[in-house]
Amino acid sequence: WKGEFFPGIPKIKYEGPNSKNHLAFKWYNAEEVILGKKMKDWMRFSVAFWHTFRGTGGDPFGGPTKFWPWEDGTNSVAMAKRRMRANFEFLNKIGVDYWCFHDRDIAPEGDTLKESNEYLDEVVALAKELQGSKIKPLWGTAQLFVQPRYMHGAATSSELGVYAYAAAQVKKAMDVTNYLGGENYVFWGGREGYQTLLNTDMERELNHLASFFHSAVAYKKKIGFNGTLLIEPKPQEPTKHQYDWDAATAANFLRKYGLLGEFKLNIECNHATLSGHSCHHELETARINGLLGNIDANTGDPQVGWDTDQFLTDISEATMVMLSVIRNGGIAPGGFNFDAKLRRESTDVEDIFIAHIVGMDTLARGLRSAAKLVEEGSLTELVRKRYESFDSEIGKKIEAGDADLEFLEKKALEWGEPKVPSAKQELAEMLFQSAL
Amino acid sequence: WKGEFFPGIPKIKYEGPNSKNHLAFKWYNAEEVILGKKMKDWMRFSVAFWHTFRGTGGDPFGGPTKFWPWEDGTNSVAMAKRRMRANFEFLNKIGVDYWCFHDRDIAPEGDTLKESNEYLDEVVALAKELQGSKIKPLWGTAQLFVQPRYMHGAATSSELGVYAYAAAQVKKAMDVTNYLGGENYVFWGGREGYQTLLNTDMERELNHLASFFHSAVAYKKKIGFNGTLLIEPKPQEPTKHQYDWDAATAANFLRKYGLLGEFKLNIECNHATLSGHSCHHELETARINGLLGNIDANTGDPQVGWDTDQFLTDISEATMVMLSVIRNGGIAPGGFNFDAKLRRESTDVEDIFIAHIVGMDTLARGLRSAAKLVEEGSLTELVRKRYESFDSEIGKKIEAGDADLEFLEKKALEWGEPKVPSAKQELAEMLFQSAL
Amino acid sequence: WKGEFFPGIPKIKYEGPNSKNHLAFKWYNAEEVILGKKMKDWMRFSVAFWHTFRGTGGDPFGGPTKFWPWEDGTNSVAMAKRRMRANFEFLNKIGVDYWCFHDRDIAPEGDTLKESNEYLDEVVALAKELQGSKIKPLWGTAQLFVQPRYMHGAATSSELGVYAYAAAQVKKAMDVTNYLGGENYVFWGGREGYQTLLNTDMERELNHLASFFHSAVAYKKKIGFNGTLLIEPKPQEPTKHQYDWDAATAANFLRKYGLLGEFKLNIECNHATLSGHSCHHELETARINGLLGNIDANTGDPQVGWDTDQFLTDISEATMVMLSVIRNGGIAPGGFNFDAKLRRESTDVEDIFIAHIVGMDTLARGLRSAAKLVEEGSLTELVRKRYESFDSEIGKKIEAGDADLEFLEKKALEWGEPKVPSAKQELAEMLFQSAL
Amino acid sequence: WKGEFFPGIPKIKYEGPNSKNHLAFKWYNAEEVILGKKMKDWMRFSVAFWHTFRGTGGDPFGGPTKFWPWEDGTNSVAMAKRRMRANFEFLNKIGVDYWCFHDRDIAPEGDTLKESNEYLDEVVALAKELQGSKIKPLWGTAQLFVQPRYMHGAATSSELGVYAYAAAQVKKAMDVTNYLGGENYVFWGGREGYQTLLNTDMERELNHLASFFHSAVAYKKKIGFNGTLLIEPKPQEPTKHQYDWDAATAANFLRKYGLLGEFKLNIECNHATLSGHSCHHELETARINGLLGNIDANTGDPQVGWDTDQFLTDISEATMVMLSVIRNGGIAPGGFNFDAKLRRESTDVEDIFIAHIVGMDTLARGLRSAAKLVEEGSLTELVRKRYESFDSEIGKKIEAGDADLEFLEKKALEWGEPKVPSAKQELAEMLFQSAL
Repeated sequence: WKGEFFPGIPKIKYEGPNSKNHLAFKWYNAEEVILGKKMKDWMRFSVAFWHTFRGTGGDPFGGPTKFWPWEDGTNSVAMAKRRMRANFEFLNKIGVDYWCFHDRDIAPEGDTLKESNEYLDEVVALAKELQGSKIKPLWGTAQLFVQPRYMHGAATSSELGVYAYAAAQVKKAMDVTNYLGGENYVFWGGREGYQTLLNTDMERELNHLASFFHSAVAYKKKIGFNGTLLIEPKPQEPTKHQYDWDAATAANFLRKYGLLGEFKLNIECNHATLSGHSCHHELETARINGLLGNIDANTGDPQVGWDTDQFLTDISEATMVMLSVIRNGGIAPGGFNFDAKLRRESTDVEDIFIAHIVGMDTLARGLRSAAKLVEEGSLTELVRKRYESFDSEIGKKIEAGDADLEFLEKKALEWGEPKVPSAKQELAEMLFQSAL
Repeated sequence: WKGEFFPGIPKIKYEGPNSKNHLAFKWYNAEEVILGKKMKDWMRFSVAFWHTFRGTGGDPFGGPTKFWPWEDGTNSVAMAKRRMRANFEFLNKIGVDYWCFHDRDIAPEGDTLKESNEYLDEVVALAKELQGSKIKPLWGTAQLFVQPRYMHGAATSSELGVYAYAAAQVKKAMDVTNYLGGENYVFWGGREGYQTLLNTDMERELNHLASFFHSAVAYKKKIGFNGTLLIEPKPQEPTKHQYDWDAATAANFLRKYGLLGEFKLNIECNHATLSGHSCHHELETARINGLLGNIDANTGDPQVGWDTDQFLTDISEATMVMLSVIRNGGIAPGGFNFDAKLRRESTDVEDIFIAHIVGMDTLARGLRSAAKLVEEGSLTELVRKRYESFDSEIGKKIEAGDADLEFLEKKALEWGEPKVPSAKQELAEMLFQSAL
Repeated sequence: WKGEFFPGIPKIKYEGPNSKNHLAFKWYNAEEVILGKKMKDWMRFSVAFWHTFRGTGGDPFGGPTKFWPWEDGTNSVAMAKRRMRANFEFLNKIGVDYWCFHDRDIAPEGDTLKESNEYLDEVVALAKELQGSKIKPLWGTAQLFVQPRYMHGAATSSELGVYAYAAAQVKKAMDVTNYLGGENYVFWGGREGYQTLLNTDMERELNHLASFFHSAVAYKKKIGFNGTLLIEPKPQEPTKHQYDWDAATAANFLRKYGLLGEFKLNIECNHATLSGHSCHHELETARINGLLGNIDANTGDPQVGWDTDQFLTDISEATMVMLSVIRNGGIAPGGFNFDAKLRRESTDVEDIFIAHIVGMDTLARGLRSAAKLVEEGSLTELVRKRYESFDSEIGKKIEAGDADLEFLEKKALEWGEPKVPSAKQELAEMLFQSAL
Repeated sequence: WKGEFFPGIPKIKYEGPNSKNHLAFKWYNAEEVILGKKMKDWMRFSVAFWHTFRGTGGDPFGGPTKFWPWEDGTNSVAMAKRRMRANFEFLNKIGVDYWCFHDRDIAPEGDTLKESNEYLDEVVALAKELQGSKIKPLWGTAQLFVQPRYMHGAATSSELGVYAYAAAQVKKAMDVTNYLGGENYVFWGGREGYQTLLNTDMERELNHLASFFHSAVAYKKKIGFNGTLLIEPKPQEPTKHQYDWDAATAANFLRKYGLLGEFKLNIECNHATLSGHSCHHELETARINGLLGNIDANTGDPQVGWDTDQFLTDISEATMVMLSVIRNGGIAPGGFNFDAKLRRESTDVEDIFIAHIVGMDTLARGLRSAAKLVEEGSLTELVRKRYESFDSEIGKKIEAGDADLEFLEKKALEWGEPKVPSAKQELAEMLFQSAL
């Protein structure tokens, strides 16, 4: 392969909302300052290597549909390196400084673990070189779900040998993430869950998972890796029930096993809705538990029950996502990883660019709308006023935990029927929509 | 009102599986011993006063359909007392020793809190007398969701006055539960949740909820109430999102706010499925978190998205529920409360009996099937064998938290590709079904 | 009651997108011409009497929360008339020319059917007078679901007496709709469905429903009522399964029973999503079956499984709705009926206005965006091009039904592997979003 | 490959409910007569070649897990023939007389359509021989969804060349089904649907689908194929929205395009629940539309939103399925095809047998329970009595379509308030459960 991977596609530029150019940003202007911070520093966009460069378009009912010109049909180390060059050309053209990967996406699995590690080292060395001084991994992770050995899970497999194999893979993936300057390391519990409780010892599996995480924390400290460890909640798929169901479930796990403080959460919008929550709910739950670490920027289909991993193009949802990020004071050292894939039927090379552009523009538009809401202030004020009775002395007593039931009963008897004002939901929705 | 409330309906007896008598038990034989314990001690059935005596058949699209002969159309104290007599006749005829109530179900709300408390005392005095030595509350609770003052929640209301009013109501409800010899006290967060995050300060509301629970714990200790405090998870309805979404969410809340050890969970099957879990999953999650306290015995409709509170009649689900109870060593001091209502269209007095009989029989049949599974042992053995690689020395090292990533990597390199046996799901399903 | 019902609230005016006035339109400008038609003629907005004037805020877990100042707590004819005056003041102030009603919303039920009819006549006479020359019903209907006699359905009740009663009610409701100049008449199958198939003869019930509709068609013709008859699909609630599940199910029913041509459909967005379809899908299904008659303008909550009947505030969904309406050449003689209710917690009189304003503005904004899409043309062109191979001679042969399998096989063998271009979904989403 | 494919596995025999032998039937006794018909004639079981012999265990998150000893890793014609021999050994050992196939499951795709047809002929000749006089296809079909050419659909593809290719494939598949003595031919609209309406001309696609079906009907008649044509409804997956959503949607399509009478439906339980209906509902809907043609015997997971295609092991659901079949007077010339696959984690050869045995036993147990219900008669009588008011003279008038609204109003006024008896749902559930 010689020359460009994406010939004819220029570096993508900001042209403003009136541009008709499909290959230009209409809303994302990297250097523009919003609420005191550059857009690129709010967003910290990252390209997901697996979807963008390993996605084949296959689904449970059909085979691959993507036959990118640079692919030679092999899973060789040479092909892995060529693909890595395509990745960096793409990052440079789209103007994104972070990328995310699984170990097995970027390099082939060998006949033995040792061989796999060697292949990985070889490709990682190239990636290090191509990164230069500007680009680095938002995070790395180990792929513990494709290979049949992981069919019962990795850290929660019923087989000890699989647990050990997974541990070895995580060790290596953490090493290379550290070597590449990755800012986080993610645990996505690919098959950590169950298909039926009838054949599962859930308690024992969860205990194993906790041991696994404790070992990972110890190793992180030992090698001096400073990145944040992240758990990515998902309710189901591929298993009937994944252990990291949602943000609250993951938080309960971390608290139960003494892992709080060592992990944050990587919230994915599509996983949020599959678990019965809005994306905004999951972000806020993570945030108020002090666990908002990263966002997998995608969306699902409201009518389907599986993980569609679509590029987010809904501006309302994007605005709510950005409201959480603003309240969180930003998302660094996390960012927005495009854990999103082209639709199976999108088969032009330019579709890769179009999808990322509309995804970036949507979140940028969300940031602009959220900032408008914050600056305009009416919605914030509506919420503040709803709770102002608690800003009183007795309110403070309650919030300090000093109001016992007898005291409160005395007040209730004294005060008579309490006033209960309107919640003004439709007004709140009006104010929200006005900012879009 | 004179004489019997349920004339012509005899005390319900056990007649065995071949009986065609609608007013007899076919599977529930109270004194029969199963796995070393009498059926009645495994089940600890309880009648829910609100559904059975205050259910009107109304729904969002229509008014009441039940016009029981003993009702006079008023909400007076006299009517409340008459209804209480009907309750005890029913308990005696159906052969159930426990009942559950909300404060406002059993006595009318007065013009003031003081008056409400007086009405409650009057009805509770009668209930105490009617209980005799054999019957008592499985649990009591305060109804904090019907009255419009609670439209924004009770402990999570945006209004301080409502918080205080709710506290006063809980204090009184706990007093009367204690007085009646109740074995537990339940918090069902009727409207603790939100309709939209746009107008909600979720973090502040959750902090208030925690303060509220801490005050309740302090009061319980002060008055020497020995019952268990229970939280009842529910994902949604009436609000879009209830704070006690599921067992894991409630556990996270208890851990975060230092309330673990003071509360257990009351798991309801219909709430489980609304949150995207099987009932069995929620029971097991509660159990392995040490939080399985009580079961609200009902079921939902797998195709509808709201709380139907049907009597459980599915023997597979009942068997799975009883498997969890057996693993838990029983459910005492909790029990099975029939938080289930007659269908709107079931309007005969005998339907009240038929519904409870089939509900009790179903769980009793579930106990028999679960006991058969446990005694036969094949399914237990299948599960044990799946994990036996962890019974080794290295398995013990992992489970003790002593296996670091380097050690595990060394083993993985040494062992080569791990063996991964079949999970035998279809065999597990065959064994399960054979016990039904 | 004297003077205004909504004192202090002026006639709502269009002030444009930059207005901060909650009581002004930002997007709906009634007289403005869009794609050759006035906005008011595209929209044909209607106020739903039941939600706006009879909604109490009650839900399955709680009682009324709305205590409008003009309500006196009775269900008298006098109160009905006062309420009707409030309705017309509201219509005038909000600037809407249509209203919709059920018989029993606008007048109380009497002790007998005869009495009910007399009450209805009395209130309808007043409504006629208040309508003046400008206002009329978009549609009327009979309420056949609240009263307990309808608990098993109306036309599908298992009781013949109920079927007859429902027929009498429909006859009268059609009479008064005709008298008031209503442009349509709706059948919403309130409880036409089942709770369980175990006790239901579905085939017989559907046959009864068809007989009922045939009688209604005959009566319509007999009295010379020129309005369109509409069926409103809904998948479930209050029953487990409603017979008019979705647009395709209703169309199948109409075809099977020879009723096609006599009915159109009233599509409700919230019902669409409860049936597993997008609102856009249901509108398009109705449209291409020649059945798009009216739109119930509301929305549901994507995470909840019951009918929330919220005011639509999402601009993407509104744009898709309006795309269907534009393709349909408008919606007359139907319109957009706000089958939407204030949230239970919205209790200020002004909330009634705010909710309708944001609902009207959202659809108006949707119209503007849809018109922009249509005028700009790129999305239309993308779709046209996808199918252009069928514009060929052989394509025409296929579409005419003249291409047999042998001919097609011959071509397939001759042509070899067909080309399959990208579906450009992300580009379509980019173009769509650009219009918002 | 020499000798047996399933060595050590004997012909599966009936041993009765107390057998502990995993490789024996406990409930399915082929020659036993139930309600006047042999069990095997009620069931007409069929093995699905694709799941049983081509299922790899792959899913969207992982690769194959099944490595059956007879597979050599190639997709050659030789391998196809060897696999076909395994199929017939399996059919003989499990005691099933029907099998189902897609063209591309049983023979590899060649470089050209001509070559593919030749491969197919070669394998089909062997199948014909192996069938002998006892075994034949329940149905055949063309696989129009795996190959990337079908990514936009087959008959509804936006590309004319794909439409022609699909037509050619159907022609050939119908030829071979006819040659093998198949009793039905199925159309499963693999990718007939859309991913987004934004890029789709739904009306034009549906018109093409109708043309395609008309051509298929004409060809069937031309070649004298006497089997039933079947459409298999499915709501979604792989597309966001499949055109054959459910039984009612398919019926509407058949009626609209003049295809009624030419097609029946193949109802799949898992597809039923994905469309928001119970399996029983879909079967009854098909039955009362005269369209119940075949059953794909599987089940889904009530908590997951994709097609899990599990073997049905729930005895309640099986009993309801068999109630519909009994009411239908049997299912011939259709049958029960096991469109069900081993769980990904079930990797022992014996699991193939265990899964089919439990699936067959479950439906056989359902038949026994349903027959018990029918013979005992209480439930039937409960339903009959509910509707008996319509057995009156006026009821007959209504059912004949001779009761106009005026007549019914007269009766309603005369009769006064109708009686509305209890629907006895809990009793119906008690009676149902007693039969299990």
